[in-house]
Amino acid sequence: MASELAVHRSQLRVRYAETDAMGVVHHAAYVPWLEVGRVNLLRAAGAPYGDIEARGLLVVLSDLQVRYRSPARFDDLIEVQTTLIALKSRQMAFRYRVLLHETGATCVEGMTSHIVVQRATMKPVLLPVDLHDLLVPWLVRE
Amino acid sequence: MASELAVHRSQLRVRYAETDAMGVVHHAAYVPWLEVGRVNLLRAAGAPYGDIEARGLLVVLSDLQVRYRSPARFDDLIEVQTTLIALKSRQMAFRYRVLLHETGATCVEGMTSHIVVQRATMKPVLLPVDLHDLLVPWLVRE
Amino acid sequence: MASELAVHRSQLRVRYAETDAMGVVHHAAYVPWLEVGRVNLLRAAGAPYGDIEARGLLVVLSDLQVRYRSPARFDDLIEVQTTLIALKSRQMAFRYRVLLHETGATCVEGMTSHIVVQRATMKPVLLPVDLHDLLVPWLVRE
Amino acid sequence: MASELAVHRSQLRVRYAETDAMGVVHHAAYVPWLEVGRVNLLRAAGAPYGDIEARGLLVVLSDLQVRYRSPARFDDLIEVQTTLIALKSRQMAFRYRVLLHETGATCVEGMTSHIVVQRATMKPVLLPVDLHDLLVPWLVRE
Repeated sequence: MASELAVHRSQLRVRYAETDAMGVVHHAAYVPWLEVGRVNLLRAAGAPYGDIEARGLLVVLSDLQVRYRSPARFDDLIEVQTTLIALKSRQMAFRYRVLLHETGATCVEGMTSHIVVQRATMKPVLLPVDLHDLLVPWLVRE
Repeated sequence: MASELAVHRSQLRVRYAETDAMGVVHHAAYVPWLEVGRVNLLRAAGAPYGDIEARGLLVVLSDLQVRYRSPARFDDLIEVQTTLIALKSRQMAFRYRVLLHETGATCVEGMTSHIVVQRATMKPVLLPVDLHDLLVPWLVRE
Repeated sequence: MASELAVHRSQLRVRYAETDAMGVVHHAAYVPWLEVGRVNLLRAAGAPYGDIEARGLLVVLSDLQVRYRSPARFDDLIEVQTTLIALKSRQMAFRYRVLLHETGATCVEGMTSHIVVQRATMKPVLLPVDLHDLLVPWLVRE
Repeated sequence: MASELAVHRSQLRVRYAETDAMGVVHHAAYVPWLEVGRVNLLRAAGAPYGDIEARGLLVVLSDLQVRYRSPARFDDLIEVQTTLIALKSRQMAFRYRVLLHETGATCVEGMTSHIVVQRATMKPVLLPVDLHDLLVPWLVRE
């Protein structure tokens, strides 16, 4: 069920500070964009990340993969497509496509995995049931 | 008493990620370099910033001024010269010169002001006396 | 003539990557936000910054001042108010107010000065007349 | 032949600007550290990256993988261990281990792949033979 509804779309515009001396966006600058997509998906799901932290939990990143296809440039309008692809009791994962809004060209494809930890101890804990239930409708099994 | 001893010198090398599409270091990238200089001066004075935070205090930046003279580029070896220019019961200020190590050319000149606040309340507090005393020898009255 | 029309308003949302261990936005992270405001004002004026660079010109930052009033935090909706306050044959300057959209609280106030240089030589040149004319309606004399 | 000589070691200290509201280093901040390690290995091999760009070539990143093991914190002294693990006519790859200098604890493990392109056209080209020869002694077949 790769529902189009479950793909969250965020838009942002490339900042000059995100470019490098190659004249294009620096490869590290895409990583916070994936975070923007993920945070916006959580908000859309009714589980804003700030609320998760307010419970004393952190959702920490355990794994990051990015494949670079074609460069984005200063002032390009960017779309970040975010999909929740795994949702387990202790782990979740997202897939991303970052593309140029104007042409649809793919800039990067990415994947991140996350675990939930208690802020005080940094020990892994179960994803709270209500958060799990809010995220289930967004899950796309691949 | 503008003692040369009181000028702290830090070295760093320009990272590719700090450049922008102009082919030079992005103006915002110099700001963390001033922080590197300041943090190293505090450590040299026997008052590492981590220890200050461990007491429940934060030294927050209240004012920043940077004048850009000539650009630094990827892989340049940079020297950050940091001087403590004000030390009061509730406020301190630093002056900076960022230069190319090889030629001595000045890239930027900067100034930052800071206040001490309690982390829990974010309210200003007095600079602890022992910290003040550790910093006095570094003070250069202009 | 401090026309309200001449104040450009940009909105952005605080990214987690822009926060620091104090739990608030790192002071250096505001600097690219000023750039966002400035770039958006230029686009609104009909002089997108990319077009300026396409002529072989760069608008380089020569002076930066930021006063920090109260912290912004992760996920805050931010408004950047940008005003063109100087427009001369070889120099321009902008003033900024960065505020929390929800409460109107001022986070930082800033000012930047800029000169126009030829990309090939990095030497200052006159601001082209057509750019000057596009920007005149946005000028607010203080 | 996983020669210890072929592992390049860089040191750096965590900047406050690299931390986030979790109180630890933000996951995106490790990515420029991998670049620091890679750039330093190239310099040690006699092929400084600036020289490569001076020939009109760019070494662009095509693939990034990072596994996060344990967090680094402000002011930690970091060691980046970089190993060249693939060297082909059109592609190279590096492996990284980022660790705390004091305890030896692994913070992250990473891998990057790169292709060489002509700056003017952004089209892939062969790695110049002299660069290839300089890098051969650093290659560790896994």
